[in-house]
Amino acid sequence: MNKWIINQANVFNTYNKRFEKKSVYIENGYFKQISDNFDLLDFHNAKIIDADGLWMVPGLVDIHMHIESSMTTPTRFSEQGLKFGTTTVVADPHEIANVFGKKGIDAFMDSETIMDIYYGIPSSVPSTIPELETTGGIIGENEVLELLHDKRVICLGEVMNFKDLVSQEDTLIKRIVSLCKQQRPSMPLEGHCPKISGADLAAFIASGVNADHTMQSPESIKEKIENGMFLEIQGKCLIPENVKVLTDNKYDEYYCLCTDDTMPDHFLEGQLNKVLLKAVSLGLSIEQAIYASTYTPSMRMQLFDRGVIAPGKIADFVLLSSLDEWKVESVYKNGEEVYSSSYQKKEKMLEYPQEFYKSILLDKINKEMLEVRVDTDESEVLVNIIEVNSSSTFTNIAKMKMPVKDGLIDWKNQGVALMACFERYGKNNNIAFAFVKGAITKDGAVSSSWAHDHHNLMVMGTNEDDIINAANHIIDLQGGYCVSVNNEIRACAPLPIGGIVSHAPMEELGKDIKEVRKAMSEDLGYIHNNAIMSFATLSLPVSPTVKLTDKGMIIGKTLEVLPLIAGE
Amino acid sequence: MNKWIINQANVFNTYNKRFEKKSVYIENGYFKQISDNFDLLDFHNAKIIDADGLWMVPGLVDIHMHIESSMTTPTRFSEQGLKFGTTTVVADPHEIANVFGKKGIDAFMDSETIMDIYYGIPSSVPSTIPELETTGGIIGENEVLELLHDKRVICLGEVMNFKDLVSQEDTLIKRIVSLCKQQRPSMPLEGHCPKISGADLAAFIASGVNADHTMQSPESIKEKIENGMFLEIQGKCLIPENVKVLTDNKYDEYYCLCTDDTMPDHFLEGQLNKVLLKAVSLGLSIEQAIYASTYTPSMRMQLFDRGVIAPGKIADFVLLSSLDEWKVESVYKNGEEVYSSSYQKKEKMLEYPQEFYKSILLDKINKEMLEVRVDTDESEVLVNIIEVNSSSTFTNIAKMKMPVKDGLIDWKNQGVALMACFERYGKNNNIAFAFVKGAITKDGAVSSSWAHDHHNLMVMGTNEDDIINAANHIIDLQGGYCVSVNNEIRACAPLPIGGIVSHAPMEELGKDIKEVRKAMSEDLGYIHNNAIMSFATLSLPVSPTVKLTDKGMIIGKTLEVLPLIAGE
Repeated sequence: MNKWIINQANVFNTYNKRFEKKSVYIENGYFKQISDNFDLLDFHNAKIIDADGLWMVPGLVDIHMHIESSMTTPTRFSEQGLKFGTTTVVADPHEIANVFGKKGIDAFMDSETIMDIYYGIPSSVPSTIPELETTGGIIGENEVLELLHDKRVICLGEVMNFKDLVSQEDTLIKRIVSLCKQQRPSMPLEGHCPKISGADLAAFIASGVNADHTMQSPESIKEKIENGMFLEIQGKCLIPENVKVLTDNKYDEYYCLCTDDTMPDHFLEGQLNKVLLKAVSLGLSIEQAIYASTYTPSMRMQLFDRGVIAPGKIADFVLLSSLDEWKVESVYKNGEEVYSSSYQKKEKMLEYPQEFYKSILLDKINKEMLEVRVDTDESEVLVNIIEVNSSSTFTNIAKMKMPVKDGLIDWKNQGVALMACFERYGKNNNIAFAFVKGAITKDGAVSSSWAHDHHNLMVMGTNEDDIINAANHIIDLQGGYCVSVNNEIRACAPLPIGGIVSHAPMEELGKDIKEVRKAMSEDLGYIHNNAIMSFATLSLPVSPTVKLTDKGMIIGKTLEVLPLIAGE
Repeated sequence: MNKWIINQANVFNTYNKRFEKKSVYIENGYFKQISDNFDLLDFHNAKIIDADGLWMVPGLVDIHMHIESSMTTPTRFSEQGLKFGTTTVVADPHEIANVFGKKGIDAFMDSETIMDIYYGIPSSVPSTIPELETTGGIIGENEVLELLHDKRVICLGEVMNFKDLVSQEDTLIKRIVSLCKQQRPSMPLEGHCPKISGADLAAFIASGVNADHTMQSPESIKEKIENGMFLEIQGKCLIPENVKVLTDNKYDEYYCLCTDDTMPDHFLEGQLNKVLLKAVSLGLSIEQAIYASTYTPSMRMQLFDRGVIAPGKIADFVLLSSLDEWKVESVYKNGEEVYSSSYQKKEKMLEYPQEFYKSILLDKINKEMLEVRVDTDESEVLVNIIEVNSSSTFTNIAKMKMPVKDGLIDWKNQGVALMACFERYGKNNNIAFAFVKGAITKDGAVSSSWAHDHHNLMVMGTNEDDIINAANHIIDLQGGYCVSVNNEIRACAPLPIGGIVSHAPMEELGKDIKEVRKAMSEDLGYIHNNAIMSFATLSLPVSPTVKLTDKGMIIGKTLEVLPLIAGE
């Protein structure tokens, strides 16, 4: 029998939100008793850990996040996340589902990890409709029904399409929500509803989808919580006014902290603990921040067996030598030490099916494929172009005259980059183009198959050689993110599994992504506070502004195709 | 489509714990939108209720209670409870289970009621073991398994036997708890654990049984909550020190209010609302008292669809003209008015199986059956007697010499009453005796088949004529509670269904019980602050002190039989 005593730690008590000097007895993976002091002679079979001076906190629980945002596998995610004390996550695998459909979700779920990874059902795959983007997989009612029978699935992942959800018509998302309610009446239904309020918000919540993790304002926090919504507050949502409204109104029970997306290079530095510390830096008490990273997320997900250091709960916890700086001494999962400065328990690495490594079904790109033909006798043509915003993923539509030569648009030296999207699932060989202003300001190209949410092959550059070099490099690698300058690959992160994740150790992947980020910024002069995310969301048609899929430029708000030639 | 607007009420917002002037739109039984004001012209199909000056509160949710404590059927319970605004209860039907086993539970569950009545699985039927008391039914593993497949069952009812629960041995209650965890991993397991603390309490909680509704002290409240227990605070537990510890420590989320037992005469005056008002009179804010009678009990029972006035929740609510005095104007269930001063929606009355009305399987009692034989040649014998405590259900054991005449104990004129327990399920015709001091002080007898938990026929009196008259009257009625003085029935409440509940209107039953209470006090001189409960628990062997079953006197704490003749 596996018995431990964590002796005389500063133990977080969830119910009074205080740290108290206590000793904690653990047996077979569960907390058994918390006491002022034990007579250690009574526990001669137990391993005694002297925790004097250490802080003992429940393992962190991150209930809104995407493993694919870290471009990694569940196994590597577990390995890295445990270092910071995250012991449970609820992942929405909608990226791998866009690539491989339910097969992708199954492969993720079949990864045995030390961290407990639960799953949400991706509710929007594809993000819009098959007419507007080609994806590798689709999640329809049959897939949802199968997933509802899986115990590892504990919620419906973020429902994005407000209009379809509250429509009077019979829509797919309404059918999916009904299916969930019918099969699992009390399962949480997670939402994504920025910028809606009043009757629209009430209708959204009344549908049963009653959580949101998007950007908030003090007003939206108040309105959403007081109408029964549970808020999952991610790092970017932590601004002083928002923290103030949460604390002033004592909304303690009705929100949690979450990460949503943690890029590989940022993942080297932390995970949910970073969001927690940011909240504290903005005025949340450390006790409330821990509560919101352990107890309330567990309650939301009906994981009643964890998030607390109390008898009968799963013994997931972190010992910290500094609370303010979150200095992790060791991490325990199911009552077993799985990480310390000198030790990390080995994860079982999963081999994915062979086809997962051969998912970019494209021949090499050549110059002819990049010709932007236009049917005109004029020497100029008015073109719709995409303007990139330097601090958000929103874009603008602009118009611009471009010269025409031999039936081709002569876009070079016009102050724009050419962006192309190549359908890569072998379904239709679509190629679509857009001209982009405001992103790349130097000469070169960037290419990626990690392109939300359809993950077709995206490339953007100022000259054909670099465009071809970058795109073909990604095809060679069968996935990744790279920068080419002067026909030379300056930085590259290979993502060979489904073209979106890598099984490389996180140190290696994080370093690669850091280099890509640097190359985008320095070599391409890409003007954005998160260049990698900016480019990777120029492909996302569910975004309200204009984006590019293999079907062309799509205006997310109206779901209209914007023609390349203005006025067509 | 059924549409209502409750216009301009003082609406309780659960999330900020404030009343706010709002209008509430209801559609098809659910709250749809809460707004400062609606343009009523937009809602020409809706029925508009002018609620200006009224208080709007979610329907009360009572999660620890026994319908049989009100000696009534689910249907009548619903009818009466709705008048006070209770719209949901979770009933532990362990009394009807003691009489009829699972068949009794099924009959209760099959009653269609306007109030939502959910059920717990009675975990201790019989309360001790079949060797110490004969019951009509037994709830074993098979019955538990069947009940776990029923959607109306939402928790395991109060687990009482601490020793068996934490035993190293294989015990029935451990097997039942395992079965629950295996079949329904997150189902709440309810407990009954007075006066345990430290390692014992930790072991109790660690078993997964993590709620308690018994009497508390400020210390036990603190220890139990801070070890992860959810407390269900019943009326008698509301004392100033307890309310203070709940409020001072901001334990808002970790307890609720409940009734446990509401006697028929008390039920005429109120239900959970009375507990709520008592809490307020002792210092709880009205907002917190409502929170603890609506939201926290719903959360505990994972009834996420209610307890709150917010979009998407079931429209169960009360309109009050006075909050402080809980003056009910009207009550709505599923968005429909079901009670007001001038209207009450009719309940569907259920006919129970014929056998439910023929459950006292006893021939008439006669004088010979009351002879207390003793095998001695002495003229005196030392007897163990039960001393009744005037303010609790605990008893004491005393010893007393009694004369012996013709082999019979001559107990009359010795300052004691004779108490007899007749096995009434036709299983073994057991008769057991005890002598009782401190209860009846005048001449006469009381008899009842409502006798916790085995519900055999109990009778106690000072002379044989009244004992026989009272007991035979209950046999004639096939159940009830009555008082006989001078061979005449002074007061009687018939309980013909299983001998423990009545289908009579609550006014009638409440009046009958009030008369029995009065007769016990005035005619029998029964010294107790709740004489009806006192006598009805003199049969309860699970109580730690000495009680009488058909098997004899039982000491609950040690589960030993106490012989009538001392030293035997």
